[in-house]
Amino acid sequence: MTNALHLDVPAGAPWIDFTREFDAPVAAVFEAHRDPAIVVRWLGPHGYEMVAERWDFVSGGGYRYVHRDPEGNEYWFRGVFHTIRENAFALQTFEFEGMPDEVALEFLWFEDLGGGRTRLRGRSVGRTVEGRDAMVASGMEQGMSEGYDRLDALTAG
Amino acid sequence: MTNALHLDVPAGAPWIDFTREFDAPVAAVFEAHRDPAIVVRWLGPHGYEMVAERWDFVSGGGYRYVHRDPEGNEYWFRGVFHTIRENAFALQTFEFEGMPDEVALEFLWFEDLGGGRTRLRGRSVGRTVEGRDAMVASGMEQGMSEGYDRLDALTAG
Repeated sequence: MTNALHLDVPAGAPWIDFTREFDAPVAAVFEAHRDPAIVVRWLGPHGYEMVAERWDFVSGGGYRYVHRDPEGNEYWFRGVFHTIRENAFALQTFEFEGMPDEVALEFLWFEDLGGGRTRLRGRSVGRTVEGRDAMVASGMEQGMSEGYDRLDALTAG
Repeated sequence: MTNALHLDVPAGAPWIDFTREFDAPVAAVFEAHRDPAIVVRWLGPHGYEMVAERWDFVSGGGYRYVHRDPEGNEYWFRGVFHTIRENAFALQTFEFEGMPDEVALEFLWFEDLGGGRTRLRGRSVGRTVEGRDAMVASGMEQGMSEGYDRLDALTAG
């Protein structure tokens, strides 16, 4: 991979920072976050089926979806969109319903690098350092990395 | 004041913790957060007029309001409600529109102390330690303290 996921998990802070570049224009990367028919094709780890019960990618909107693993186990997630600015910025809450009220606040900047390339830059802030650490220990990096690899393939194609 | 505001602003962390007790049942304290006609009577510092353009205190709802100082200067705030559980819990985003995208995630627990008394316990998590520090430097403690004094008077009355 030339476009690897870079994850920064500073000790003692409740947040995770990341960057991931794509060989695709910012409008294509943004649309792949806005359109639920595209989102379900890339979000989450390999081998999981995603079904979006709701996906209103607008300021004041919200979402709820399930990831189903090959054994049929279900993992539900939900949140609200505080701000969505086209081709520029998304700010949402994020909750794994298996850990109720352990909600994170997720900032996502869509940066136009020119030449049809885009950088995603994100910060996810948890309620506690321990909650942040638990999220990392759950395999978050692999899930993100695999999801962004699929997004890469979708937007390059 | 027997029911003082206790604020904890730990160095190097992006959050603020607080507690405030009330000589009122938890249902009354919760209702004073749910009903916008009551909210506008207590939220914010003394001497400001509050007008709620929107206040849907339900999971997935949202709010926007203005505080007007005696000189007529306006300060707008907005956010979304991720979770509202009656007489128990509220989780919302919070943005001062004068500092766009510096959004905080606010957790608020309504605790029934018995004997018709209630404890509010809150955590506000900012995007950065610097943003948290700027919020504190802006006079947040005095504004909260004055607002909760009015809430005290309203719910005791």
